[in-house]
Amino acid sequence: MAVNNDDVKLIGAWASPYVMRPRVALNIKSVDYEFLQEQFGSKSELLLKSNPVHKKIPVLLHNGKPICESSIIVEYIDEVWSSSPSILPSDPHNRALARFWAAYLDEKAAPRAATEEAKSAAVSQLKEGMALLEGAYGEMSKGKDFFGGERIGFLDIAFGSMLGWLRAVQVRVGVKLLDEEKTPGLVKWAEKFSADPAVKDVLPETEKLVEFAKLLSAKFKAAAASDPLRR
Amino acid sequence: MAVNNDDVKLIGAWASPYVMRPRVALNIKSVDYEFLQEQFGSKSELLLKSNPVHKKIPVLLHNGKPICESSIIVEYIDEVWSSSPSILPSDPHNRALARFWAAYLDEKAAPRAATEEAKSAAVSQLKEGMALLEGAYGEMSKGKDFFGGERIGFLDIAFGSMLGWLRAVQVRVGVKLLDEEKTPGLVKWAEKFSADPAVKDVLPETEKLVEFAKLLSAKFKAAAASDPLRR
Repeated sequence: MAVNNDDVKLIGAWASPYVMRPRVALNIKSVDYEFLQEQFGSKSELLLKSNPVHKKIPVLLHNGKPICESSIIVEYIDEVWSSSPSILPSDPHNRALARFWAAYLDEKAAPRAATEEAKSAAVSQLKEGMALLEGAYGEMSKGKDFFGGERIGFLDIAFGSMLGWLRAVQVRVGVKLLDEEKTPGLVKWAEKFSADPAVKDVLPETEKLVEFAKLLSAKFKAAAASDPLRR
Repeated sequence: MAVNNDDVKLIGAWASPYVMRPRVALNIKSVDYEFLQEQFGSKSELLLKSNPVHKKIPVLLHNGKPICESSIIVEYIDEVWSSSPSILPSDPHNRALARFWAAYLDEKAAPRAATEEAKSAAVSQLKEGMALLEGAYGEMSKGKDFFGGERIGFLDIAFGSMLGWLRAVQVRVGVKLLDEEKTPGLVKWAEKFSADPAVKDVLPETEKLVEFAKLLSAKFKAAAASDPLRR
């Protein structure tokens, strides 16, 4: 049941992990919204007007006012619809921890790798990140299912929205990032997160993302091949 | 007068704009703290233990618990000592705006530039950033002195803590980033911010920073010259 009479729109795209964050947050809060999907390879007038600084999705439009940047939008949703389940932990130290690891993910999650050597370094870095997050999960979940405890919280959303791409990378690159032996807590967490009612309809299927990644990769190669500045 | 009986320590260094952020926040809240300065070129055991992921200053130690990342520490301070003047705006949309521009500063403020061409591009980018922030100041201050209105707030701290280095860059590179004609609002804001009781004793003097920058630059050149992998 929707809790809002407000006009809520989200500018995004189905495949973006950053767009998935506010979608999960809005679902947790039972907020109805209109999903305005950008077309791949172009930017709408509405997007350019709503996020003139970065020109990036997601943008939340709340009664016409734009809010940008995925983690900032999630905090905004938590503050505006404050009576529903909380997304940020109530304890300041736990809030700081959740924000710390969410910022870590934003910084480290998408290593760029053009060469084989760089790819191998990127995979090592991702594995190291998973080990750190396994430790953080142990510390923060305290035996419950989620980083946020019994319910999905801020860091669950930040990390969980990347699960589709994580699984697609596992398929494409042939590495195991979520590993029963090395990250047993995260394996269990990923299952619980993916099955949650606020998540399951907005988490893209791995096969669809793998197909999309192939398409992207082919487009980038074609663009690079026709680049007059290419060396 | 101090409001805390807690044990509060800050690991930092006088010249770091990121360290200045929690210092201003603690001053605003009248929280007494011990300032533990790192020595340039080395990292203390306490720092490595307190921030094992990034190994970076600042770290706040509150009754022994570490909190890392300057903006996250400022939010933590605002939440823990919540009865004193607020640092984040109370309105969710204004909070989102303050967080948006603080994140923008973290992303754009320290462009790396090795060549003359890159330096010129970096200066253009900084000037463009100043023009955007002038617009944000007009929108957010609503005729008052600060981004946060009548009092120094989250974005004032995030941006204001960079003022020392901004002025040092103006001297070293010979460009005017804060400009009476192009950014009259920011010029006035910078004066008010620098003179504020919570700020004036922790904002480093421009001349000291210029000297420090010369020292840094000389050390980097010496390190590069003796680098066996240098091409």
